[in-house]
Amino acid sequence: MIVAMKKGATGDQVTTVVQTIQQFGYRVGSIEGEEETVIGAIGLGDVTACLEAVGPLPGVMRAVRISTPFKQVSLTFRPVRTVVKVGDVSIGGEELVVMAGPCAVENEEQIMAAAEAVKKAGAKILRGGAFKPRSSPYSFQGLGFEGLQLLHKARELTGLSIVTEVMSAMHVDLVSNMADIVQVGARNMRNYELLKELGRCRKPVLLKRAPDASITDLLLSAEYIVEHGNSDVILCERGIVTFDKEYTRNTCDICSISVLKDLTHLPVILDPSHACGRRKLVPGLARAGVAMGVDGLIIEVHPEPRKALSDGSQSLDFPQFSKLMTSLGSLREVWQESRREFNGTSHLVALA
Amino acid sequence: MIVAMKKGATGDQVTTVVQTIQQFGYRVGSIEGEEETVIGAIGLGDVTACLEAVGPLPGVMRAVRISTPFKQVSLTFRPVRTVVKVGDVSIGGEELVVMAGPCAVENEEQIMAAAEAVKKAGAKILRGGAFKPRSSPYSFQGLGFEGLQLLHKARELTGLSIVTEVMSAMHVDLVSNMADIVQVGARNMRNYELLKELGRCRKPVLLKRAPDASITDLLLSAEYIVEHGNSDVILCERGIVTFDKEYTRNTCDICSISVLKDLTHLPVILDPSHACGRRKLVPGLARAGVAMGVDGLIIEVHPEPRKALSDGSQSLDFPQFSKLMTSLGSLREVWQESRREFNGTSHLVALA
Amino acid sequence: MIVAMKKGATGDQVTTVVQTIQQFGYRVGSIEGEEETVIGAIGLGDVTACLEAVGPLPGVMRAVRISTPFKQVSLTFRPVRTVVKVGDVSIGGEELVVMAGPCAVENEEQIMAAAEAVKKAGAKILRGGAFKPRSSPYSFQGLGFEGLQLLHKARELTGLSIVTEVMSAMHVDLVSNMADIVQVGARNMRNYELLKELGRCRKPVLLKRAPDASITDLLLSAEYIVEHGNSDVILCERGIVTFDKEYTRNTCDICSISVLKDLTHLPVILDPSHACGRRKLVPGLARAGVAMGVDGLIIEVHPEPRKALSDGSQSLDFPQFSKLMTSLGSLREVWQESRREFNGTSHLVALA
Amino acid sequence: MIVAMKKGATGDQVTTVVQTIQQFGYRVGSIEGEEETVIGAIGLGDVTACLEAVGPLPGVMRAVRISTPFKQVSLTFRPVRTVVKVGDVSIGGEELVVMAGPCAVENEEQIMAAAEAVKKAGAKILRGGAFKPRSSPYSFQGLGFEGLQLLHKARELTGLSIVTEVMSAMHVDLVSNMADIVQVGARNMRNYELLKELGRCRKPVLLKRAPDASITDLLLSAEYIVEHGNSDVILCERGIVTFDKEYTRNTCDICSISVLKDLTHLPVILDPSHACGRRKLVPGLARAGVAMGVDGLIIEVHPEPRKALSDGSQSLDFPQFSKLMTSLGSLREVWQESRREFNGTSHLVALA
Repeated sequence: MIVAMKKGATGDQVTTVVQTIQQFGYRVGSIEGEEETVIGAIGLGDVTACLEAVGPLPGVMRAVRISTPFKQVSLTFRPVRTVVKVGDVSIGGEELVVMAGPCAVENEEQIMAAAEAVKKAGAKILRGGAFKPRSSPYSFQGLGFEGLQLLHKARELTGLSIVTEVMSAMHVDLVSNMADIVQVGARNMRNYELLKELGRCRKPVLLKRAPDASITDLLLSAEYIVEHGNSDVILCERGIVTFDKEYTRNTCDICSISVLKDLTHLPVILDPSHACGRRKLVPGLARAGVAMGVDGLIIEVHPEPRKALSDGSQSLDFPQFSKLMTSLGSLREVWQESRREFNGTSHLVALA
Repeated sequence: MIVAMKKGATGDQVTTVVQTIQQFGYRVGSIEGEEETVIGAIGLGDVTACLEAVGPLPGVMRAVRISTPFKQVSLTFRPVRTVVKVGDVSIGGEELVVMAGPCAVENEEQIMAAAEAVKKAGAKILRGGAFKPRSSPYSFQGLGFEGLQLLHKARELTGLSIVTEVMSAMHVDLVSNMADIVQVGARNMRNYELLKELGRCRKPVLLKRAPDASITDLLLSAEYIVEHGNSDVILCERGIVTFDKEYTRNTCDICSISVLKDLTHLPVILDPSHACGRRKLVPGLARAGVAMGVDGLIIEVHPEPRKALSDGSQSLDFPQFSKLMTSLGSLREVWQESRREFNGTSHLVALA
Repeated sequence: MIVAMKKGATGDQVTTVVQTIQQFGYRVGSIEGEEETVIGAIGLGDVTACLEAVGPLPGVMRAVRISTPFKQVSLTFRPVRTVVKVGDVSIGGEELVVMAGPCAVENEEQIMAAAEAVKKAGAKILRGGAFKPRSSPYSFQGLGFEGLQLLHKARELTGLSIVTEVMSAMHVDLVSNMADIVQVGARNMRNYELLKELGRCRKPVLLKRAPDASITDLLLSAEYIVEHGNSDVILCERGIVTFDKEYTRNTCDICSISVLKDLTHLPVILDPSHACGRRKLVPGLARAGVAMGVDGLIIEVHPEPRKALSDGSQSLDFPQFSKLMTSLGSLREVWQESRREFNGTSHLVALA
Repeated sequence: MIVAMKKGATGDQVTTVVQTIQQFGYRVGSIEGEEETVIGAIGLGDVTACLEAVGPLPGVMRAVRISTPFKQVSLTFRPVRTVVKVGDVSIGGEELVVMAGPCAVENEEQIMAAAEAVKKAGAKILRGGAFKPRSSPYSFQGLGFEGLQLLHKARELTGLSIVTEVMSAMHVDLVSNMADIVQVGARNMRNYELLKELGRCRKPVLLKRAPDASITDLLLSAEYIVEHGNSDVILCERGIVTFDKEYTRNTCDICSISVLKDLTHLPVILDPSHACGRRKLVPGLARAGVAMGVDGLIIEVHPEPRKALSDGSQSLDFPQFSKLMTSLGSLREVWQESRREFNGTSHLVALA
């Protein structure tokens, strides 16, 4: 943390700033130029609280954080890429991993048909919601435990691994027993009780970015899981909230993929279905993500999208998904090139 | 729901639309003009899923929701204002209710000092966090149960009622036993498991708007609580996320106060502290909210803001709070005038 | 500007940073701590270009601007409030100035009726558009020169001063000859050719904030006008673009009023009509702005809003405007109190 | 336009709505169901003004626009793709067109070096600003006429066509005489006087999306140019404003490429340099745009980015640009596949 004092700041004002910083556990290095004084805080402390305390003090021109608030998930902290193993699939390594399936498990016939179709097309992991977070209490809320059982059955049938959402710390044991990857939905990205509980679970966690989360917010939520003991975290871009909701449900922040590959060692995947929310736009967006070097995709696929109980307008049918999977093949070379650009150490610094 | 078909849409396309709508449990009224066909869906069904299914069908020009997705919280549905009683304080009635206190309970001395000071200045309810949702796992996370006990002690000492946050469905019993109003923080506005549990609790709920929540999203989260049995819900504007984070932490959507007063019978309060995040701006914003006719305010007050473990930069000290409370008095006439403008029935309709 | 180097940055990296900064005309003060090096740039130069050059250099942890990029409009630079005189009206002084009238001049009858009505209710300045910037080429584009003549006539009839918009540098002479205040609409806030031309004109300029402009952007546009010779600039908040367009046309960034009063000596007014875009919400928002201490209001008023050629849904009719004006009277005390809080010097610093 | 009346709306309320609509020049088709009345407006009129007038009338539940407000630029209106010819280059046809060069023309040596380098790497059109819109009056404002002359010289030397910006209606003749494509910058997208003047000029126009412009806003600005006589308009996505400005300058709305290809027959290009604002992210984003099927790219390239007078942090140097151009080659197959998905007619409808 660095504090630049205003021109003409008094000695007393500097002293108050220094004492306030020290009170948060930092050592202080003060530098006095001819015209301006800059104070640096060195060491470990609660930088957020310290910035909040120092910012409004008299004589302060600007107080800025210098180091990133996330640590263990940072590529600088741990300069080796995390590869998350799920069965014989490696997420974050040399293969592009596609997860696919319906928004929600609706019945046995639907999930079995979806599982077989996505497997046949080349997906490695089956997605499907049993517990569904819905904006309205009157919308379909998922099959709950029965949905988990159907996913289990689909795994037995197809050999696909399963990713499904958990909505409450109370359900972590239940869901993590049945699933291979436990998903935290965008609306729960800041449900810290849930994150802490997932830190204690032994399954990989797929953490979706909240629509209003900065890159730093997302990494701090991942940090919660890692700090509480679970380092197998997969990050997922799924669109952010912007003024532009005329033709797409969210705005895909496609550059966040590159920014995250630069900042963190954790794998990063893209959910093109939620990011755009329109079936016609999903294939193009999936291809764009792969061209940028994403570690994987998670895509909504439904046997009959127009009969879907949720997300029908963004679900691909089987032929559309199959066609998309084929076209991804020709992106291999570009995918590798984009990934090579993020070898080595972190480079980007926050703008100010 | 109304579906406008494109000029030249075929009979088959119309039939598919009609059948798709019917499949979601609606009756259909189709109207054929000379050049265009408009189809109306009548009855009750999952309008979200239906819109998702119909929107992408061939021949559809536009499919729009007509009625609001929230029901029980709507002023049209229940044209009588809800007044939430907490001890002898009425929120939503003829008095402006001020809740105040520190962001977090830090220790006994701090919370007792704050309780006495805010009571003396005229606040009716004491705020203070025991369980703190923090972006970083390295920030102060609150005193937990010990914090609740200190709040209890402050209530005994001062007679003030208590509002404090609950972060997990698992803690609802614990917190609602100790608190007079249970707060749902902005980050948990879409924690539906928590909302359902609060529907079953017997204490009023203070529901904060998430920074990325539309008015409808907020009302749907309130609807979860009401639908699950608890109709004592207080809504709270606390700033939204926008591009404009240069000088304020959030952007106060001050007009949401009026919009909510028009749409819902539930009380609406303003949190000027989080909405702007800067001590110097809090008094002016509080006055603006009162001039608009808000039912109450919730304000952060700390004995020594620059030693606060959280939110120091937006907390008022005691003299500042006391001065603000005095100035609110002269707003009574304007406050009443603004409220009179929202007597009667709901008037605003969603823009398109 | 301050540059914090990464831990372990090499001497060569530091040298490159120093040379790059010097190349932009700055002197450099380098400070080496035990673990970290901080480099300060002193003097005057193109800080934007310098930040862009230094930010991506190897070894740089963070490069931040310290001083504000605006100078002459800053309250720190010129610690005396600017009062803009228009006839015998003073904007920025001891009176709240209300400007009112229709969105566009439509015909003689309409503008004369409006002029008389707003004058009778207490407005001091008549607004009305002759040149109208409209999103669609098929919408009413204003009466142009004829509209200016009708405004001139209304001034003769009522004695009200006139504020009207100019859309092009080519029309500055024409409009400034006919108007008492020349308005720059939100869409032209970054039309720098227009701003430069207005710097050369001898009439006060009402500069509206663009919906996507930060506070700094707005102040930099004002700086263009001042730097080119015209220091009579009035700033106007009129709503920003956010995700929240469900019930209001824009989101009123009400706190920008306080932020601007803190940062600049220029007068600041509020346009509640555009900021919310809904007639029912205008009076409450106008009162909120006054409670915050705004220097003036600009309000759309139309004889028959539902026959208006533009902005009908946000225009007050005569009785509504008259009623609002009456209610503003009881806010005088609070208005003064809010203004006192922004006496003295600038206090807020940019967040980081 | 369709107006849904509230349940229980009176006959008088319906009559008022009908009369109001008719007053704007529409015929009315009213449909009365058992419980609800829907009113449709048929014909041509000022739909914006009509919506503004009808929306607030008593008894109205919702008033929505059905058809798009843009006409001539719509793919439905003109179902043949526009191909813009510039010399022997075709934009919007079977080739991906890359425009490249420095942000601003700084001096002869710089622009000549850039022109030769980008030509060698495969660019077809040289970009370079002579008139520069800058947020601050203290930043480099471009070389003006001298810059145009240098661009002219670079064209003579290399044979590359030139794209450069015009900032004022007064300069349209000057710039269009020297340039092959005239660019409207994002800040002037709503400078309607400029757009009208460009409608009268005989050179293609490159129209950049403003950071706060919806897709419809952008298409309406294009409609201004086409309506005033010039149908050679190229649209350009260059990033929008969002809360997410931590690591990127803007947020690239990559899906807008697909949305635009669906809605309009005009060519659509991507400016990855401004969209992300960080050199390291430009190549990945450029590849993503090509994978989505964009008609072209416009990329900032500078001989020595860290000496650039503007946009240094987002400019590629020559080797980086050359490497990027090589990698784009392997995207040809995917590029064609994405484009095939937008053959045929427009499919997307606005969400509501």
